[in-house]
Amino acid sequence: MDVSIIGSTGYGGMELTKLLHKHPNARISSLHSDSAAGQMLSEIYPHTDGVTDMLLRPVESDWIVANSDIVLLATPSGVSSRLALDFVDKKHPVIDLSGDFRFMDEKLYEKWYQKKSAPYRYLKEFTYQIPEFFKKTANSRFISNPGCYATAVLLGLAPLVQNNLIEETIIIDAKSGLSGAGKSLSQSSHFVNAHDNMTLYKANQHQHIPEITQQLTAWSATYDKIQFSTSLIPVSRGIFCTMYVQLREKKSVDNLHDIYQQTYLNKKFVRIQPKERLPDLKQVVGSNYCDIGMVYNEKTNVLMIVSVIDNLIKGAAGQAIQNLNLFAGFPEDDGLDLVPSYF
Amino acid sequence: MDVSIIGSTGYGGMELTKLLHKHPNARISSLHSDSAAGQMLSEIYPHTDGVTDMLLRPVESDWIVANSDIVLLATPSGVSSRLALDFVDKKHPVIDLSGDFRFMDEKLYEKWYQKKSAPYRYLKEFTYQIPEFFKKTANSRFISNPGCYATAVLLGLAPLVQNNLIEETIIIDAKSGLSGAGKSLSQSSHFVNAHDNMTLYKANQHQHIPEITQQLTAWSATYDKIQFSTSLIPVSRGIFCTMYVQLREKKSVDNLHDIYQQTYLNKKFVRIQPKERLPDLKQVVGSNYCDIGMVYNEKTNVLMIVSVIDNLIKGAAGQAIQNLNLFAGFPEDDGLDLVPSYF
Amino acid sequence: MDVSIIGSTGYGGMELTKLLHKHPNARISSLHSDSAAGQMLSEIYPHTDGVTDMLLRPVESDWIVANSDIVLLATPSGVSSRLALDFVDKKHPVIDLSGDFRFMDEKLYEKWYQKKSAPYRYLKEFTYQIPEFFKKTANSRFISNPGCYATAVLLGLAPLVQNNLIEETIIIDAKSGLSGAGKSLSQSSHFVNAHDNMTLYKANQHQHIPEITQQLTAWSATYDKIQFSTSLIPVSRGIFCTMYVQLREKKSVDNLHDIYQQTYLNKKFVRIQPKERLPDLKQVVGSNYCDIGMVYNEKTNVLMIVSVIDNLIKGAAGQAIQNLNLFAGFPEDDGLDLVPSYF
Amino acid sequence: MDVSIIGSTGYGGMELTKLLHKHPNARISSLHSDSAAGQMLSEIYPHTDGVTDMLLRPVESDWIVANSDIVLLATPSGVSSRLALDFVDKKHPVIDLSGDFRFMDEKLYEKWYQKKSAPYRYLKEFTYQIPEFFKKTANSRFISNPGCYATAVLLGLAPLVQNNLIEETIIIDAKSGLSGAGKSLSQSSHFVNAHDNMTLYKANQHQHIPEITQQLTAWSATYDKIQFSTSLIPVSRGIFCTMYVQLREKKSVDNLHDIYQQTYLNKKFVRIQPKERLPDLKQVVGSNYCDIGMVYNEKTNVLMIVSVIDNLIKGAAGQAIQNLNLFAGFPEDDGLDLVPSYF
Repeated sequence: MDVSIIGSTGYGGMELTKLLHKHPNARISSLHSDSAAGQMLSEIYPHTDGVTDMLLRPVESDWIVANSDIVLLATPSGVSSRLALDFVDKKHPVIDLSGDFRFMDEKLYEKWYQKKSAPYRYLKEFTYQIPEFFKKTANSRFISNPGCYATAVLLGLAPLVQNNLIEETIIIDAKSGLSGAGKSLSQSSHFVNAHDNMTLYKANQHQHIPEITQQLTAWSATYDKIQFSTSLIPVSRGIFCTMYVQLREKKSVDNLHDIYQQTYLNKKFVRIQPKERLPDLKQVVGSNYCDIGMVYNEKTNVLMIVSVIDNLIKGAAGQAIQNLNLFAGFPEDDGLDLVPSYF
Repeated sequence: MDVSIIGSTGYGGMELTKLLHKHPNARISSLHSDSAAGQMLSEIYPHTDGVTDMLLRPVESDWIVANSDIVLLATPSGVSSRLALDFVDKKHPVIDLSGDFRFMDEKLYEKWYQKKSAPYRYLKEFTYQIPEFFKKTANSRFISNPGCYATAVLLGLAPLVQNNLIEETIIIDAKSGLSGAGKSLSQSSHFVNAHDNMTLYKANQHQHIPEITQQLTAWSATYDKIQFSTSLIPVSRGIFCTMYVQLREKKSVDNLHDIYQQTYLNKKFVRIQPKERLPDLKQVVGSNYCDIGMVYNEKTNVLMIVSVIDNLIKGAAGQAIQNLNLFAGFPEDDGLDLVPSYF
Repeated sequence: MDVSIIGSTGYGGMELTKLLHKHPNARISSLHSDSAAGQMLSEIYPHTDGVTDMLLRPVESDWIVANSDIVLLATPSGVSSRLALDFVDKKHPVIDLSGDFRFMDEKLYEKWYQKKSAPYRYLKEFTYQIPEFFKKTANSRFISNPGCYATAVLLGLAPLVQNNLIEETIIIDAKSGLSGAGKSLSQSSHFVNAHDNMTLYKANQHQHIPEITQQLTAWSATYDKIQFSTSLIPVSRGIFCTMYVQLREKKSVDNLHDIYQQTYLNKKFVRIQPKERLPDLKQVVGSNYCDIGMVYNEKTNVLMIVSVIDNLIKGAAGQAIQNLNLFAGFPEDDGLDLVPSYF
Repeated sequence: MDVSIIGSTGYGGMELTKLLHKHPNARISSLHSDSAAGQMLSEIYPHTDGVTDMLLRPVESDWIVANSDIVLLATPSGVSSRLALDFVDKKHPVIDLSGDFRFMDEKLYEKWYQKKSAPYRYLKEFTYQIPEFFKKTANSRFISNPGCYATAVLLGLAPLVQNNLIEETIIIDAKSGLSGAGKSLSQSSHFVNAHDNMTLYKANQHQHIPEITQQLTAWSATYDKIQFSTSLIPVSRGIFCTMYVQLREKKSVDNLHDIYQQTYLNKKFVRIQPKERLPDLKQVVGSNYCDIGMVYNEKTNVLMIVSVIDNLIKGAAGQAIQNLNLFAGFPEDDGLDLVPSYF
């Protein structure tokens, strides 16, 4: 399968390139970047020399349609919404990593992203697809890949929400490494500011909130609001997501553990931790795993769930490859059999 | 005022030395360390050469009583409980930075610290003293200095609890730098493990829990339980404490802000942030400040409070000096007029 | 003494503010910043609230001359050269922290800085002043403060060069934290690039080279060239400078140690390490110290010298205060009695 | 090919496990660790669960000889010397990653390692093998894998030394991440000490010195001494090695560049950088590359060479796999086609 990547020089695009380099059944047929067209990738990223180096081509949809089987959009929100249209018109398969096709509702998008939405007739062509809950549909040719925070949150809450176990408010305290904010320059990503620091930003205003509640209510109508905090911690990669929920009724630890294991039976990339063990961030960084642990407090009837992912892999490029595998009928872990780097 | 420090080579002891070096009304008369007695401090810590260097003496209570006006115990829990007794017997003023004299209840201590408690007749001599809520008492000669997490939590919750505004469960998600765990060696503090990582430890089992609930219930009997998580983030110093509480009734942001400002009127070391602004960690590191910000979610009626401190200063040595100043009748900020380092 | 600071919101300016806050004989009378005039400092840097907060005023030389006794220019190279002229004309004392007044030669400046030089008649008013080698001169009203790398290098080499002990080439391998590059934004200072990385930049092309050789040849005409490498390491503050020189003749370790101690006799801010001990970076960060250690290799007759400083203090603001103290006749360590932070 | 690993739970052993997991022609048949025998690897390293997890077996040479084709010793110096003997006696192939079989001289080993050497009759069975300079010999069944610093240095100097271009002293200023010191606990690897710090240790006393000079003199008898400094920088992985040499005669940049390219023609894992470009550390971390750049200073006739590697891959486990591939006749990059992680 020939794959074109648009937005090749961003963090997401680079990670796609790295993962596809080892994919047994798909290969990168072309890299595209309007800002860097004509350059070799290694001129910008010397580390790719001799490994994943390739010419960066301009973004020309006709050329791409003619020369690849699928296109991966690793472009920022506000860009995908424009670039995807041609491919949809030409019925050329697309997986979009941005937030632009995650809603069926132009207004909702425009409220949270403060950008012009793609028209509804294109939105409805897309399927928002968490691969662990994938069901083949007519639309699966156009896939909207979940956001990084949304992935960690939804995989962490799914067993509880699908079984309707939570009473009221869901409190989410998510921490992300700096790569989550992309490579654009700002004082908040300046080393001197970010190093030795922790910052909480966009409290209850992060654009992944409607994406999360849309999916939660699809699972169980009650859960239409969340308390959502996002912080930056001084690491490059990884999301450490802590969630607090009050249970409708007291549960045993064994029972809760069973529910989680049941939900992710045969889901290779979700690793439910042994009882009472919580994952640390590093045990997933460099891999496509989402590791989930939980601790139940009998006194307060609060269940704390910790869900960790590599934001650039399971939270972006890895999940996109997983969706590509499902789309193409490849084994789900093609190109994703990664050992976390740990050290 | 002549001050002796016991436990001089630990992080807390070193910070006391640094702060007292600039104190206008108190001076270090002697440093004590059983493990390093006979050495100069600079043999262990070359950075002190020519500034705060001094001979390290053995821990001999008679000598100390004869040669200083007050003794600061920067010794670990389980050590203070033994060392303090002599000074209490001799009515020599003590400020203890460990957890050993924070409860009036031997059993409670032994349950949470898994160590032998000091006898009750000594416990009752001590006052647990948050300087912002200081009231001179008969016991103020023996002061138990609050723990680092407890300081961040209690200052962050005091306005709400004292005014009885919280409904039910208090959820606390606290993150600390590695110095919080002290200088003893373990895999979890090895650079290769801690760097680029985040770990949640002792969920609902941290020994600061009873200290927090003891004070909360002293303020308002209802608040006898908390949900408490403690994590390590890859910084050396600082606690970033995020708290989530459901309010009994809806409040305006202005109203909440007023309540906080009222509580800390004329309290120099607590800086309530402007409305809707949350502090970052670095804005207090290197200083004795506790900065507090909050964001109210009208939808969920959840108030999120963020409280940040330097764990070694406001969470330990700085607060101890603040308590010393109150004890001695010095201006509260003697030796504590510190500009956060920030860069 | 009333001090005005121009360029108050850069790293150097902020550090000046912090140091002068504790100065017993000088005080900040005004802060100036063209880009931020009209704002309070705490609007940009919340950590200054209640401590060093002040109104930021526009840069108006008449006002400044009327309202202060001396002006500190913490402005970038290319800006000082323009701003300083008025003050020189008005004979208002200036300490400039930029590279703009370090040479007596317009061409030399323009070659290395790629910027227009201040006119020679202004250059000659300035004295390049390493406080450890200060001699009061007619010009000492206008002081050019040494650069950060130059400080670490010159203090490390002075004993050898002044005594003419080095044969041939001097090899300097200097490493700096990210604050050395200032707060302007670039990919190289983006957290994701700088973290977990090390980069060598401007090999033999750094603008501190002519400043170093100018001083070396002033001490001993032979030393007119150096091999000079500058690297970024993932810390915020500090310069770790390793220098390798071949000695003219074999020397004993004792002898070399004596020469260093002799040179810095009664120089409080240079701490020669015990024989065979090398300083680490942290033992000076947060202080005005320059710590120097050396190891002699009898086999190769190479002496390795390690010199460490805090680039923002001894390499910039601290040294400027030291120069101000010398100018004003204050004790040399006024405002500079700082304990390295270490933890 | 069935591979046994001894010392499986150290950094080197873990990296071998990770690399062999993706090897097309070799597989791990067993992991061995005396200290952890009987446990699953994932009990110690949860990140391996479901990927590289395996039972840890005791170190029993008979069992290993019977159940694998080759044994990789990822044990510390002083342990390999003892464990390897049995395998040599039984003519079972060994690749040893420690320093124990790098010399043909017991005394030399004992001087630098301060440990008992393996007997000479075993030493002489081993070949010290830099894969880039591999020539099949009778002994190639017992391979001693080069040390991490030695690898970076020797690959960086080979073109110059083999062509006899250097005049006199070679100055090496090498910096390493903390994983270089292994997982054992010490104050120097405690996060609070290593973070925000840089330390120079073992100046001219590092045990890789004789390994380097042994190889240099094998290439050209003149180069029997080096000036060698090793530092720790606050990263987990990577060696950044800066070398300074005076050339015998002036050379053009083009000429020097040609010599390097010629030496490494068809050597996939050495990437000579474009002229005047220096590699940064991150461009090799996570890969088996050694990237080399250089800058020539016409004024001083000094050539500076920068050589960067991932100390755990090219400096240990990756190089061992490369040696295994050469031994077994597999393609040299089997299991080593790794894209540097970069972000």
